[in-house]
Amino acid sequence: MRQPAHGGNLAWAAAVAGCHPSAILDFSASISPLGPPNSVLTAIASQMDCLRHYPDPNYSQLRASLSNYHQLPPEWILPGNGSAELLTWAGRELAPLAATVLITPAFGDYYRALMAYDAKLLEFPVPLTGKFAHNQDRGDQEVFSLVFSLTSIPQTLPTKCGLLLNNPHNPTGKLFLREEILPCLEEFALVVLDEAFMDFLPPDSQQSLIGLVPQYPNLVILRSLTKFYSLPGLRLGYAIAHPERLQRWQQWRDPWSVNSLAVAAAIAALADQEFQQQTWNWLPKTRNQLCQGLMKIPGLLPLPSSANFLLVESHNSSLQLQQILLRNYQILIRDCQSFPELGDRFFRVAVRTSTDNQRLLTALNHNS
Amino acid sequence: MRQPAHGGNLAWAAAVAGCHPSAILDFSASISPLGPPNSVLTAIASQMDCLRHYPDPNYSQLRASLSNYHQLPPEWILPGNGSAELLTWAGRELAPLAATVLITPAFGDYYRALMAYDAKLLEFPVPLTGKFAHNQDRGDQEVFSLVFSLTSIPQTLPTKCGLLLNNPHNPTGKLFLREEILPCLEEFALVVLDEAFMDFLPPDSQQSLIGLVPQYPNLVILRSLTKFYSLPGLRLGYAIAHPERLQRWQQWRDPWSVNSLAVAAAIAALADQEFQQQTWNWLPKTRNQLCQGLMKIPGLLPLPSSANFLLVESHNSSLQLQQILLRNYQILIRDCQSFPELGDRFFRVAVRTSTDNQRLLTALNHNS
Repeated sequence: MRQPAHGGNLAWAAAVAGCHPSAILDFSASISPLGPPNSVLTAIASQMDCLRHYPDPNYSQLRASLSNYHQLPPEWILPGNGSAELLTWAGRELAPLAATVLITPAFGDYYRALMAYDAKLLEFPVPLTGKFAHNQDRGDQEVFSLVFSLTSIPQTLPTKCGLLLNNPHNPTGKLFLREEILPCLEEFALVVLDEAFMDFLPPDSQQSLIGLVPQYPNLVILRSLTKFYSLPGLRLGYAIAHPERLQRWQQWRDPWSVNSLAVAAAIAALADQEFQQQTWNWLPKTRNQLCQGLMKIPGLLPLPSSANFLLVESHNSSLQLQQILLRNYQILIRDCQSFPELGDRFFRVAVRTSTDNQRLLTALNHNS
Repeated sequence: MRQPAHGGNLAWAAAVAGCHPSAILDFSASISPLGPPNSVLTAIASQMDCLRHYPDPNYSQLRASLSNYHQLPPEWILPGNGSAELLTWAGRELAPLAATVLITPAFGDYYRALMAYDAKLLEFPVPLTGKFAHNQDRGDQEVFSLVFSLTSIPQTLPTKCGLLLNNPHNPTGKLFLREEILPCLEEFALVVLDEAFMDFLPPDSQQSLIGLVPQYPNLVILRSLTKFYSLPGLRLGYAIAHPERLQRWQQWRDPWSVNSLAVAAAIAALADQEFQQQTWNWLPKTRNQLCQGLMKIPGLLPLPSSANFLLVESHNSSLQLQQILLRNYQILIRDCQSFPELGDRFFRVAVRTSTDNQRLLTALNHNS
């Protein structure tokens, strides 16, 4: 079986580990370990009778929920079959531009969406030489923090360029500040901001640009509901952008892109403030514990992260480490083969529950 | 609320009827009244735990089921988020051709998929003057049967044309014979055959071209699982075509197009031979009863159909009839406004259970 480019491919992992997919402890997909919320599972179960009907092609109820949640009129919001589906249409919009700027390493599906319409790319690498690069141990004192600013994108780009950026950035976990992105809205013909992990930040720390969409017709925000609410199998995301743009996307795709159970799940999820608060209470301290634990392991160095995952530099081959963890512990970590800039010296892990994280730390401690 | 172009929009219908959507007796969407099968509902319920994981992007299990069902290698089959999603990619493949031939009236979403990529259209109308056209009653003896052959498409088309055809044809219910379509595979650069309703025919009556796909790289078959198994809310279809073409489509779209519950549902559905046989036993006689019932109502004339729906010519305005049936009986019929060739003088009804069909006939009898 070919090794998957993306995290979360349990069929492959189970084949390597020689166990049932359900026995894999999955750190590779950046999904919350707290969900799905009971409110959502109840909503899905209550909608089984609706499967015999087509979804409402206007998705009026879902749009009303999203509209209420984001305080924007419904026509500025388009639900999609996962944010990955909406990324396809963003790629189609970016393709005719002179070029699209990508901050690398970048999520593999960005390349897919841009290549699908022959977009031209301009890649700007985040400096990730790290601590162990070139076998130079730079000493224990040095902290591997990410120094990169959007202002390092040169001023002399071709005219009419696009920018495709995620914030927080995957796989580094870096959070770009609102003020830092703001000038890009003036410089780029189209800015597509993938905020798939933004909801993991408590509301007062979020750096979302959703509130600016009404002022900037060249701004598109992509959002996911499947990571925060642990529903990647159900497929649900949405785009926030100018209504004219979203109407165009709707004509490009089929009328029933989002399934009825995802609709029910989304409406319940958005209303579940208790689950949201629980997540915001859990993440910062648990991420910090995991980060501290990783820093204590010789040969590993995690990057500080604002998201629900940590990028970890590894002195030894992360592919070998992945195999050992799978075969001996049924633990799946995310190798970084799909990020060519990172290759074998980095891996990514989701923040899971304290118990799960401890299992990972123990396994890593035995194999560092 | 704007009137929907497609059948099955219960939100709109409920608003007109002044009732809850679940109270509408829906003849507008061509969905089997027998499903979803219990086997499918059980399979969905058993997979709720899988929602926290991404679907397998290779859809290996589902493809193995489809492969077994159609006796074709798995790489010749691509699952999709409803056949409507796959139609989008078929539209993209048809668009660069000199023109795409459509037999009209044609399913509205064909225009959407072709327009999305600026395809050029060549429309060939099926003669549907009918009994009541131009207010000429041609006498009770005349049966309104559809005289149209694919050979009436002129031989002098531009070179490198495409053909987008559904079989059985929606909305007329006409079945094209395999032998009739066969010459098109030599004449057209690309033939996209939408067989969304083919599985409603008993196996020995089906006129599918699936068996010919290995010999014709210019043939694409689209199939739906949502109509026969009553699951339009879940979204599930598939394409059968040359593996190179399907790999290209996979690069155009996101990796997790089909949700995990649809995967589980499809695998269970394909294995449920009892439900399949039940459907084949039910449809011919029930359709015939409904057809006979409609023929007895003055001012109505149904076309003979090979599918699970009937197109009915109406002496009076079908839009007015639709409103009356909704308001007074909470019955929704499919007006034909989205088929400009048909307009106000035709409506379409799904074949439902004998009891439901009798309710429709009674209501129509009171308002003819």
